[in-house]
Amino acid sequence: MATETSAEVPKTARQFVLKEEVIVERKWLKLEETTYTDPNGKTRTWETVKRAGRKKGVSADGVAVIAVLQRTLHYDCVVLVKQFRPPINGYCLEFPAGLIEENETAESAALRELEEETGYKGEVVECTPALCLDPGLSNSTTHIVSVTINGDEAENTRPKQKLDDGGMLHTVLPVTFKNMWKLFHFQRMTYCKELMFCVLKKKAAEDMAI
Amino acid sequence: MATETSAEVPKTARQFVLKEEVIVERKWLKLEETTYTDPNGKTRTWETVKRAGRKKGVSADGVAVIAVLQRTLHYDCVVLVKQFRPPINGYCLEFPAGLIEENETAESAALRELEEETGYKGEVVECTPALCLDPGLSNSTTHIVSVTINGDEAENTRPKQKLDDGGMLHTVLPVTFKNMWKLFHFQRMTYCKELMFCVLKKKAAEDMAI
Repeated sequence: MATETSAEVPKTARQFVLKEEVIVERKWLKLEETTYTDPNGKTRTWETVKRAGRKKGVSADGVAVIAVLQRTLHYDCVVLVKQFRPPINGYCLEFPAGLIEENETAESAALRELEEETGYKGEVVECTPALCLDPGLSNSTTHIVSVTINGDEAENTRPKQKLDDGGMLHTVLPVTFKNMWKLFHFQRMTYCKELMFCVLKKKAAEDMAI
Repeated sequence: MATETSAEVPKTARQFVLKEEVIVERKWLKLEETTYTDPNGKTRTWETVKRAGRKKGVSADGVAVIAVLQRTLHYDCVVLVKQFRPPINGYCLEFPAGLIEENETAESAALRELEEETGYKGEVVECTPALCLDPGLSNSTTHIVSVTINGDEAENTRPKQKLDDGGMLHTVLPVTFKNMWKLFHFQRMTYCKELMFCVLKKKAAEDMAI
C-alpha cells in the first residue's frame, strides 16, 4: 500500500498499546510481548526489552554526559571513557554515562557519574528531555547533559576516578574534537552512536545550516 | 578503589567474554547471560539482549539516515519520520532507519529505507563505521549514513512512501534545523537520542571548537 507523503499527517487510526506480557524477567532486564494496534486498527505484537524494576521518581533510565574540559592555554577537550562492554565482547569509546538512582535528578546523576567515572567535578550547562536509545527494541531512555569542567581548579588538576561495584574500569580520554576525528579513523574500537554526531565535520554542519 | 586517571591506560587485565548462554529466544530477540572477566581477572555475569538470527554478510544490525533535502530557493531540510513505537507506547521522532537485509551494504540499505519510509530517492555522501546503540544493554549496532536528496528532480517532488509489512506508518517531516529546535521545545513527543545531537546549538559547536 502506497501512502501519499508530505508534511501532512495521514488519516489513520491513532496507535496504542493494548497489553504488555512478561516473557521472562531477570535481575536487570525483562523481555515482554507487547500487543498494539496498527494504523488500520489491526492488532499486532512486538518484542520489547525493558529494564527490570525501573526506579521511582526518575525521569529516564540514565544520563550521558558531554563534559567539556576547559583549561587556560589549552584547547577545550571532551572527556571520553573507554570501557569493556560485555554485550559486544569488546571495548567501547563513549561519553561518561550511567543509570539515574532513585529520586535523583538527571543533573545530579550526570555530575555523580562524571566524578565516579573520570574524577572530574563539573557544572551542568544544559539537559535534554528524556531521549530513546533504540526505540524499536527497548523503552530505554537517557538525558544528554552538557557539563563544563574548570580544569584550572585544584580539584580538577589530578582527578581520581572511582571503580564501581560492578568492577568496571573506565579509561579516561580527554580529547580535542580534531583528535577525536583521528581516533575514529585510526583506532580499532567500537564507538557509541552519539559520539559520531559530535565528530561530523564542520562542513556538514555548515551545509545543513545549523 | 580509586584509580589514578589521565590519558594513561591503567595496568589491569584485558577483559573478555568467557561464555554466552541463552536465557530465552523469541522470533526477533533473545536474552542471554554473558560471563566475562573484570579488570582484576574475576569472573562476573551480565544480562545481554541480542537480535535473534543476525543476518549473514552484514556489517551492522541497521542503518539510520541523515537525509538532507536540497531544493533551489529553499532552506535545506533534514527529513525526519514520526512513527509509533510499541516499546514506548508512543510516537517517536527519528531519522529514517531500519534493519540491513542479508548481504546488503549499509549504503544500499540506507537508500532503500529512505525510499520506503519517505519516498525520497537520495545519494550517499558518507557512512560511519558500525556504532553501538546501547552497549550496556545490547549488542545492537547501526551505521549512520549521510545522504543528499535532489529535491528539484521530478522523482523527488511528489515522493510516495511504502507501508512496510509490519503495518508501520511513517509521517514524513522535512524540517529546517531552526524548526527542528522549535519542535523539540514545543511538541509533546519522544525523540531519538541522535536527533538531539543535531540540534545542539551552533554556540555549543563553536565553544567546543569542532
